[in-house]
Amino acid sequence: MNPSSDDSPRDLPIPLGHPLAGHEDLIDALRECGRLFHSRGWSVGTSSNYSVVLGNEPVDLIVTASGMDKGRLERNDFVRVGGDGKPSFENQPRSSAETMLHVILAEMPETGAILHTHSVWGTLLSDYFYSERGFEIEGYEMLKGLEGIHTHQHRQWVPVFDNTQDIPKLASQVREALGDETDPLQHGFLIRNHGLYTWGNDVFAARRHVEIFEFLFECVARKMSLPLK
Amino acid sequence: MNPSSDDSPRDLPIPLGHPLAGHEDLIDALRECGRLFHSRGWSVGTSSNYSVVLGNEPVDLIVTASGMDKGRLERNDFVRVGGDGKPSFENQPRSSAETMLHVILAEMPETGAILHTHSVWGTLLSDYFYSERGFEIEGYEMLKGLEGIHTHQHRQWVPVFDNTQDIPKLASQVREALGDETDPLQHGFLIRNHGLYTWGNDVFAARRHVEIFEFLFECVARKMSLPLK
Amino acid sequence: MNPSSDDSPRDLPIPLGHPLAGHEDLIDALRECGRLFHSRGWSVGTSSNYSVVLGNEPVDLIVTASGMDKGRLERNDFVRVGGDGKPSFENQPRSSAETMLHVILAEMPETGAILHTHSVWGTLLSDYFYSERGFEIEGYEMLKGLEGIHTHQHRQWVPVFDNTQDIPKLASQVREALGDETDPLQHGFLIRNHGLYTWGNDVFAARRHVEIFEFLFECVARKMSLPLK
Amino acid sequence: MNPSSDDSPRDLPIPLGHPLAGHEDLIDALRECGRLFHSRGWSVGTSSNYSVVLGNEPVDLIVTASGMDKGRLERNDFVRVGGDGKPSFENQPRSSAETMLHVILAEMPETGAILHTHSVWGTLLSDYFYSERGFEIEGYEMLKGLEGIHTHQHRQWVPVFDNTQDIPKLASQVREALGDETDPLQHGFLIRNHGLYTWGNDVFAARRHVEIFEFLFECVARKMSLPLK
Repeated sequence: MNPSSDDSPRDLPIPLGHPLAGHEDLIDALRECGRLFHSRGWSVGTSSNYSVVLGNEPVDLIVTASGMDKGRLERNDFVRVGGDGKPSFENQPRSSAETMLHVILAEMPETGAILHTHSVWGTLLSDYFYSERGFEIEGYEMLKGLEGIHTHQHRQWVPVFDNTQDIPKLASQVREALGDETDPLQHGFLIRNHGLYTWGNDVFAARRHVEIFEFLFECVARKMSLPLK
Repeated sequence: MNPSSDDSPRDLPIPLGHPLAGHEDLIDALRECGRLFHSRGWSVGTSSNYSVVLGNEPVDLIVTASGMDKGRLERNDFVRVGGDGKPSFENQPRSSAETMLHVILAEMPETGAILHTHSVWGTLLSDYFYSERGFEIEGYEMLKGLEGIHTHQHRQWVPVFDNTQDIPKLASQVREALGDETDPLQHGFLIRNHGLYTWGNDVFAARRHVEIFEFLFECVARKMSLPLK
Repeated sequence: MNPSSDDSPRDLPIPLGHPLAGHEDLIDALRECGRLFHSRGWSVGTSSNYSVVLGNEPVDLIVTASGMDKGRLERNDFVRVGGDGKPSFENQPRSSAETMLHVILAEMPETGAILHTHSVWGTLLSDYFYSERGFEIEGYEMLKGLEGIHTHQHRQWVPVFDNTQDIPKLASQVREALGDETDPLQHGFLIRNHGLYTWGNDVFAARRHVEIFEFLFECVARKMSLPLK
Repeated sequence: MNPSSDDSPRDLPIPLGHPLAGHEDLIDALRECGRLFHSRGWSVGTSSNYSVVLGNEPVDLIVTASGMDKGRLERNDFVRVGGDGKPSFENQPRSSAETMLHVILAEMPETGAILHTHSVWGTLLSDYFYSERGFEIEGYEMLKGLEGIHTHQHRQWVPVFDNTQDIPKLASQVREALGDETDPLQHGFLIRNHGLYTWGNDVFAARRHVEIFEFLFECVARKMSLPLK
């Protein structure tokens, strides 16, 4: 259990020599994501995990520790991990089994931050469109907020992977999709009944992607329920 | 009427000798639950009640007093009660008739906190599935946040009890379900058109369970309204 | 336009001799209602009006001035009015034309505060059930939060009056319903496509009634959209 | 990326000689709109843009810079532009391509502020009613909050323009609709799958219009999903 935010040492610098020292600003940016996403209902019940990338090759990550309330993350609720998804320093808290998904995404040189959220609309769509292994979003101005997209006429394919407790298997499926030569996975994906992974070149960009996907998921789902004309 | 939060002595310690003295941290954790749940719309209109367990055998509880606005609970808006559900010290405010449900749940040795909330989605499902006396939730990653659950393939049965003003009768039905030898009631239940009871080994765990159940209730209810494919 | 909340003299006492002087606590309780209801989406776009009753016979009321943003009411955004619904002192801002509805409700000796809100769900139901001139709410535990109700089996009739710009005519219809000998209007009513009026013996009770009605309106409306079984 | 709000110089006056100097109050009013609209979900993912009008003839505008998080705008996240929609002083950040829409609206002498938001309900309705090029809203009391409207019986036509990346073309369509001699565009319009533009004689009035339109959009959309009677 992380302590309540009122009496926490959240604004004290992390002691020199600690694996997180010197990265307070990045950690605080993730904590702010947590407060926002929890208030939106996208990171409740200790779901979700967030990371910032310190290095891509080899992968050097700071990721949320396992089981924390995302609405009130403290500076020491994070773990520094390496390319094997394991803590790269001693005496750190445990990170989630899903850390390997962060590692896979952090291998791409342009990735600076990775955010996994868990919303109602994302969950519903991930199940509804699982049989097609994904769904397309097209024609929304909001798509232009995705990195590198310059027109609302863009067609965004949102892949849905099956949920599994075998994270290495899922990670290798995601790596394969990212490296697809004709149609590489871009911007984000869903895991069935589990939630969204998205990323960006920094925390700000990744957070923007979360907001955009969640907005679009709500549009897609609500649109399906409007009456036929 | 509890006073407004701005001019209240909320952060002063409770005087020595008062039945709540020394338990300020636990009380403050329940008050924080109240602020969160009220803002979510799960504890409006003075509905809901929350407790922490000081002892299981005999039961020694601190529970919200009756009729309080859950969004701005003060430290003295709580009552200390015993195994009969009645105030165990003199000169305390009245607690809700439902206190006996808290007592029944507090008899289990692992229970540290009990939270009763009252959301729109929980209310709707409790009525919709009353004729089946409950409903099953399966396949959601979010289920893994329930204590002791390690896979999304878990099937969670959410029993629905009929609402009644005869709380002792309801309490004995709940006790019977908790003690069922083949399929004991676990994690939480609904009362028809009334709301959720859930619990955990501390306030943090119980609050996590509230967030998880409310998330899942919204998923189940919204999923029913998606169009057929 | 009321000034922004940051640089406002909101916590200064009102000068002696001003018609609002000495009633700062009541006014602040209404302002807190405004912040809450605006954040819920029940008082947006300068809709809604709120009052506290200083005297029932003759009626002596403090009511919100016309056209204010309910999310950031200042102490001087209120008007003191008499039994004719007009300012009872000189040099006060204008109050809403609907003030006469507050006056009618304030004539009942037990009324201490009156709150008019304007939610999406209330608006939808007021139109949907207009042809029946109202609808019944029954079986919800939340009904027990209405003053004087002790069982969820209570049947609450929510009358819907037609909207009109002829407020004196509407006020006389409401007065007639309040005085009905066999089935008097109780707790609250809707105006078609316009919103809720509810009241209580103090601001706390009236606010509780708003929360309860809004919760129940959402339940009634969402329940209608669940699939048939 | 704009810096986080905690360590920002947001309350320092803008230095003399800067194109924004002396307009801190207007800028702060837009920033407050941003915080409100972001929290409502109407300005997420860096969508939306807001402006205040310093002069109508020639047009002199302060408008949000491109790509900013609307939930935490800083004082220097704004640009001063002229009647050509281009920065009227050197060394300013870039403004959005949509600035020309603000310029067109600012040419009307009564326009003091222009707010563009991007909600889920507005997005859905803009697509649903695109084939009719708009839709009518009638009978809602909330309509009376629109400037110059004095009865709920008012019929408000909300035009929907097709989305395009050719903003000058869209701007000329809007200018034509504003100048229509028999039925001029009033209060606001939607762009298909893109969002709302509305305006008022000051920031307060424009913000009120946003709240009113968003409320009415939600009513119109949800009403379509209620079952037939």
